[in-house]
Amino acid sequence: MDRLTELKKESKDIFKGKVVHLVIDKVVLPNGEESTREVVKHPGAVAVIAINKEGKILLVRQYRYALGKIIYEIPAGKLEPGEDPNDSALRELEEETGYRCEKIEPIASFYSSPGFSDELLHIYYTDTLVQGRQHLDNDEFLEVCAVDLEEAVRMVQDHRIADAKSVYAIQYLQLTLKNR
Amino acid sequence: MDRLTELKKESKDIFKGKVVHLVIDKVVLPNGEESTREVVKHPGAVAVIAINKEGKILLVRQYRYALGKIIYEIPAGKLEPGEDPNDSALRELEEETGYRCEKIEPIASFYSSPGFSDELLHIYYTDTLVQGRQHLDNDEFLEVCAVDLEEAVRMVQDHRIADAKSVYAIQYLQLTLKNR
Repeated sequence: MDRLTELKKESKDIFKGKVVHLVIDKVVLPNGEESTREVVKHPGAVAVIAINKEGKILLVRQYRYALGKIIYEIPAGKLEPGEDPNDSALRELEEETGYRCEKIEPIASFYSSPGFSDELLHIYYTDTLVQGRQHLDNDEFLEVCAVDLEEAVRMVQDHRIADAKSVYAIQYLQLTLKNR
Repeated sequence: MDRLTELKKESKDIFKGKVVHLVIDKVVLPNGEESTREVVKHPGAVAVIAINKEGKILLVRQYRYALGKIIYEIPAGKLEPGEDPNDSALRELEEETGYRCEKIEPIASFYSSPGFSDELLHIYYTDTLVQGRQHLDNDEFLEVCAVDLEEAVRMVQDHRIADAKSVYAIQYLQLTLKNR
């Protein structure tokens, strides 16, 4: 065992909701002392960098209650229990934007906030969109738009695009373009 | 008011800990229906892309209890109440790595996980490190190392670097280098 490892001593369920599952664990630290760790368990999520036939990036404009404001994000959503991230990406893309795609490619996976949550986010890329059918969840309200990379970069600068996955996505496109 | 906005009707405190503050709100949706929103309130955090005199990136190797494993991340930490993010970046850099810096520059701010948390992460850049003094929190155990960009890119690929801010940081360095 690595000398940095922390061991679970006790675990207490605090809340289990639609999205988050909060547990508070008592742990033994590497020096033998005890401490507590707050963990927000999350099913994981997918997000899709989707480029349309005009070379524009699909974005969804959405009110984020946790932030108390509207931001633009790349299409994304939570994994269903047992769902393969690849299937989830295809499903969320169509549900949110009304587009299917012929080919989708995983480009990165990362933890959103490892200090307090196990949420793992899988990022996909597609530029083979075909028309499908939008069907939003009952409590989901959003608008779809498409912008070119130059505009997306401006949207990052002025914080209309303001979340980790979408900021990453725009930077990914900037970098990919440079490498071509 | 934008037609996407959701309105708070009731708010219930579920848990307030060292890191997270969970509230469950009853909200009125844009269509007049009601729903609940789970919000993990967080004080916000800072992270520093720190390049040493050899041109290498400072990383901290740390056990992340929420993930049940060790990952490598750029130095980071939570904001203290009322603390300016700039001061927090300087403080966390020295506390975790033992380096101060002469100049630090904000490069991006983004929300980690806007679907359920208001955590805002401020990313800084510095390449003017000078020796300071490491002083970790009582329940904080980590090792500092420095790697070149090529190695960091490999670490992203094999998931030793696996969190949003650090993956973003490595991509930022790749992009910045290309632009020089």
